[in-house]
Amino acid sequence: MANIYFVGLGPSKMFLTKASIEAMRNADLIMLDKYTSITCDLTAEALTEITGRPVILADRNLLENRQREIIKHLDEGRNVAVVTVGDPMIATTHVSLAIEARKKGHDLKVIPGISVHCYVISKSMLSSYKFGRSVTVTFPVLGKLDPTPYRVIKANREQGLHTILYLDLKEDAVMTAEVALNYLLQLEKEIGEGVLTHEDWIVVGERLGCPDERVRAMKIKAAKMEKFGEPPHIIIVPSRNLYEMEVEALKCLV
Amino acid sequence: MANIYFVGLGPSKMFLTKASIEAMRNADLIMLDKYTSITCDLTAEALTEITGRPVILADRNLLENRQREIIKHLDEGRNVAVVTVGDPMIATTHVSLAIEARKKGHDLKVIPGISVHCYVISKSMLSSYKFGRSVTVTFPVLGKLDPTPYRVIKANREQGLHTILYLDLKEDAVMTAEVALNYLLQLEKEIGEGVLTHEDWIVVGERLGCPDERVRAMKIKAAKMEKFGEPPHIIIVPSRNLYEMEVEALKCLV
Repeated sequence: MANIYFVGLGPSKMFLTKASIEAMRNADLIMLDKYTSITCDLTAEALTEITGRPVILADRNLLENRQREIIKHLDEGRNVAVVTVGDPMIATTHVSLAIEARKKGHDLKVIPGISVHCYVISKSMLSSYKFGRSVTVTFPVLGKLDPTPYRVIKANREQGLHTILYLDLKEDAVMTAEVALNYLLQLEKEIGEGVLTHEDWIVVGERLGCPDERVRAMKIKAAKMEKFGEPPHIIIVPSRNLYEMEVEALKCLV
Repeated sequence: MANIYFVGLGPSKMFLTKASIEAMRNADLIMLDKYTSITCDLTAEALTEITGRPVILADRNLLENRQREIIKHLDEGRNVAVVTVGDPMIATTHVSLAIEARKKGHDLKVIPGISVHCYVISKSMLSSYKFGRSVTVTFPVLGKLDPTPYRVIKANREQGLHTILYLDLKEDAVMTAEVALNYLLQLEKEIGEGVLTHEDWIVVGERLGCPDERVRAMKIKAAKMEKFGEPPHIIIVPSRNLYEMEVEALKCLV
């Protein structure tokens, strides 16, 4: 029997914890999830340097479809660390591997890292009690946009809640805030329920945790003219019933 | 003009980041928020040892009502770090101080830490996209229970969403999972809308981030018989439309 560690690295090297470094050093083999997040400095080379362990870049196919290979390492007594930028279990696809390893009798250890989810809530200074469910804005499939983000923002707004929008990430494409905003405004045009107007605030986070990080609040009409920096980006659509203090907080981010 | 840092320490020493340690070292004065969280090892002494800076234990009165004293330090050119177990802006009361400092022209720097909010989502292995708004279970006021947690769980359940319950923390009392559960079942008895039954799952986190941490899933009927360890505790009430994989994940926590 062996240990499988699911380790969160946080958004960048500056946010690594002793807990995450120790877990990686306890592993014989590190698999760096390279498909659920992107990062400025958490490379395989950087992790090898920090941990002294071999690091394999793991794609979706290995972590989702070829789990047997990973379980085999465990069965042969090798401790494995599956490591993820951000948090290992939030908005990733690693739970099924965790369950499989546990069913085979291996020890499952989850080491949370700072997730972009909480990072952007904190940076926005909006009330953390007013966040509803989150949703991902995805690329169109066969030219058709998924209306789910629009529906989720609407449902959250009806309850006075803010919405975090994750932006799609594929092997070959990363969605920027510009593109996501265009999709949302296209959905507004098609569905037309007044969920997004030019006077609404949004908060856009760019390169969270990196030296060129920006977290800015702006009206949608201003965001439309904006050229954002390098991805990754993330968006908060605040509710319309902002507390006085939330309005003041957003003004700190203008 | 000076810098005011709002620094998150994460749940325990093991989860400190380089970003948080550097921010504290950049401060002339550290104020440790001692009223929004409790911790196993993040004491004033530990922080002084790590940072070499003087640490003041700050109560609610200082951080909320005597903000002028803190602004005065900044006005006189001293950099101040307000540090919090967990995250500095999630479920704390520090936003108004941040806004005041910014209005006086000081530089505002937020350094997120691992919040118990995301920590417990990650450890639960429940789908992070299915968490609705969070709520705090508070102590009765004049013998009367606040029904808000019951209402929030109900509203989240109607949308198929999980609920995180924070437990009340006062200068002189910390709510345990036993007490919170009793309150919820009392509300169920009074309101009677079938929001909580003995067959429902809950996830209880104890001492998150500490050596004696436990995160366990159980039915409410079992939780009623349970003696939990030392606080702090936190509870997740999962939705009833669990994905197959979420059921398997909860079984890993039994």
